Amino acid sequence: MKLTIQKDELNDAIQQVSKAVSSRPAIPILGGIKFDVAHHGVTLTASDTDISIQSFIPAEIGDKTIIRVSKPGSIVLAAKFFVEIVKKLPENDIEMEISDGLQVSIRSGSTDIQMVGLDAEEFPVLPSIEENDTFAVPGDLLKAMVRQTAFAASTSEQTPILTGVLWSLHEGEFKFVATDRHRLSSRTTYVETNPDYKFGNIVIAGKTLNELSKIVPDANTPVEIVVADNQVLFKVDRVLFFSRILDGTYPDTSKIIPQVFKTELTLETKKLTDAIDRAYLMSREEKTNIVRLVTLEDGTIEVSSSSSELGRVTEQMDVKEFSGDPLRIAFNSKYMLDALKVIDSEHIFIGFNGAMSPIIIRPTDHSHNLHIILPYRTTS
Amino acid sequence: MKLTIQKDELNDAIQQVSKAVSSRPAIPILGGIKFDVAHHGVTLTASDTDISIQSFIPAEIGDKTIIRVSKPGSIVLAAKFFVEIVKKLPENDIEMEISDGLQVSIRSGSTDIQMVGLDAEEFPVLPSIEENDTFAVPGDLLKAMVRQTAFAASTSEQTPILTGVLWSLHEGEFKFVATDRHRLSSRTTYVETNPDYKFGNIVIAGKTLNELSKIVPDANTPVEIVVADNQVLFKVDRVLFFSRILDGTYPDTSKIIPQVFKTELTLETKKLTDAIDRAYLMSREEKTNIVRLVTLEDGTIEVSSSSSELGRVTEQMDVKEFSGDPLRIAFNSKYMLDALKVIDSEHIFIGFNGAMSPIIIRPTDHSHNLHIILPYRTTS
Repeated sequence: MKLTIQKDELNDAIQQVSKAVSSRPAIPILGGIKFDVAHHGVTLTASDTDISIQSFIPAEIGDKTIIRVSKPGSIVLAAKFFVEIVKKLPENDIEMEISDGLQVSIRSGSTDIQMVGLDAEEFPVLPSIEENDTFAVPGDLLKAMVRQTAFAASTSEQTPILTGVLWSLHEGEFKFVATDRHRLSSRTTYVETNPDYKFGNIVIAGKTLNELSKIVPDANTPVEIVVADNQVLFKVDRVLFFSRILDGTYPDTSKIIPQVFKTELTLETKKLTDAIDRAYLMSREEKTNIVRLVTLEDGTIEVSSSSSELGRVTEQMDVKEFSGDPLRIAFNSKYMLDALKVIDSEHIFIGFNGAMSPIIIRPTDHSHNLHIILPYRTTS
Repeated sequence: MKLTIQKDELNDAIQQVSKAVSSRPAIPILGGIKFDVAHHGVTLTASDTDISIQSFIPAEIGDKTIIRVSKPGSIVLAAKFFVEIVKKLPENDIEMEISDGLQVSIRSGSTDIQMVGLDAEEFPVLPSIEENDTFAVPGDLLKAMVRQTAFAASTSEQTPILTGVLWSLHEGEFKFVATDRHRLSSRTTYVETNPDYKFGNIVIAGKTLNELSKIVPDANTPVEIVVADNQVLFKVDRVLFFSRILDGTYPDTSKIIPQVFKTELTLETKKLTDAIDRAYLMSREEKTNIVRLVTLEDGTIEVSSSSSELGRVTEQMDVKEFSGDPLRIAFNSKYMLDALKVIDSEHIFIGFNGAMSPIIIRPTDHSHNLHIILPYRTTS
């Protein structure tokens, strides 16, 4: 293996794949980045057991020569050191060469690095995925779908399936659902695909989707998605992102979403967010995060929280619309804030069915995004 | 106590004094901020045992009314909640009132907060300091002096006196020295003061000086300094910052600074910093941070480091001037980087007296700033 490569493009590819490097690898080779050098370009690969990321750097981009390969070959280099050193090399031209067995020379300006690599043959082989049915989602939309659901997934390894986000596709409706049993968030969109193509019970770890979001550009660049038996593959520009599908059956949550409400409110999203945020600061002191919402006779609402040591915060708010029964309910202010912060619309609808039933929060201008919070059962 | 106060000015003063609030107060009142409300303005005070900060908000700034006091008074409010909530109040007008005993109402827009305060009488009294001899240092210079020395102070509580920075004043020369026994940094400047006024063995905790730096503006605003028996007082605009002086006798370091050298180098600061930074990345893998510097026969130098697992980094560098004996020396790359990063000059001088003697680093264009690093005694 012998080549010269431009620092900026190498660094970009390293930053992309390094998200899949285990910080505490079970075996040393998983702490590495694999280089596959061919005449048409260099492929970098990193993998922990859940995520694998591959990034291809072409030899030429437009008129610009990025890589000159004298001799193809493969090697695995320890990511921890390599990721940092590449950023700091003095010149844009980097020369890499396997000088002897697994010994790699890296030269840039008057810097000379001798690294001991690992055998590329020992690097895990990426899953081979049959690309029968694929579909595409614009990058910014995919990121919004992750942002509006993944936070509601469980962080407890006691219920591994709930640490994931449930995916389904049915008649072109592509849906994400996440729940930790105390709250639920869902988001849908429509995608162009073979009308008969459908799937359900595809569950992908929330933290994997958050890592994916970091790679997906904030633009409507299409992200191509291939769902296979136990892997999902995302193709973004020259990057392939493989995610394991979580084992297990996701609980059926379709029946817990009420369609009629005893009390309905429409409010300004920002006003409520700010009020709950202030109440949250006080509720946090009590560790419970309990906030109370009460409808008043004059058609306004009152949000309040208290701490036995510190005192009490009371917020009075106008609502845009109010109908149904008077209400007195308590809920986790952190859960409410999490939901309010990902709603992009100016106004929200909140539906209640008494103090003991789930609270529904959704934007007023579309029905693609829905949040449910279970109330606290308090005596006061 | 009853007043209205503008949020922005209150928030600024809170941010200043909150740096002195203990995160884990030994007694609850030290977790609070004291409000002293008088007709001419409001004084906020916070104190842990090492630092006390007082900030005064005048009733009027220029033509603008900041505070309207209906009734003077004092109270202590829990900082943890209060610091956060003030930032988030909905309106710029804040109304505060002691309604009943220690019960405080805070109102802004439609937000109503009831807080239980603590008795201001129980708040520690600030030291009274006799202002005989005072002197002033421009804010940006004082910050530079802290930045160029405090990092070299010890972080080990086993040698409490070395966690501080030694101050001395003699014939107008104001000097900072810090050492952790492995390295030493010093910085001097000249101040205008009574020519007979002098002090020595004034030791202030490095972390206190770093906190002070956060309050001092990045401009040549004068910071007035009053050194008393066991406290130093800093006056910055409307803020008073009191620091305890550490107990104990600082070791005499004046004799360890060599005046003649067997090997002398002059180099570009940035070039050496970048080269050491790359070598540091490799040396870090070995935990020892050992980097070697060798003078070569062609008048250049070589900086290198190695890791038994990973490999080796070698940097070859031109020097601007080189005189004296050939040299082969090893040192802690982190200590060298720390010193190089605070030197503002384009070129540096490094003086050596063989592989076993202290290394001296200083800018070439002035002698106000000096760094010493002890070498490693290695066999190879």
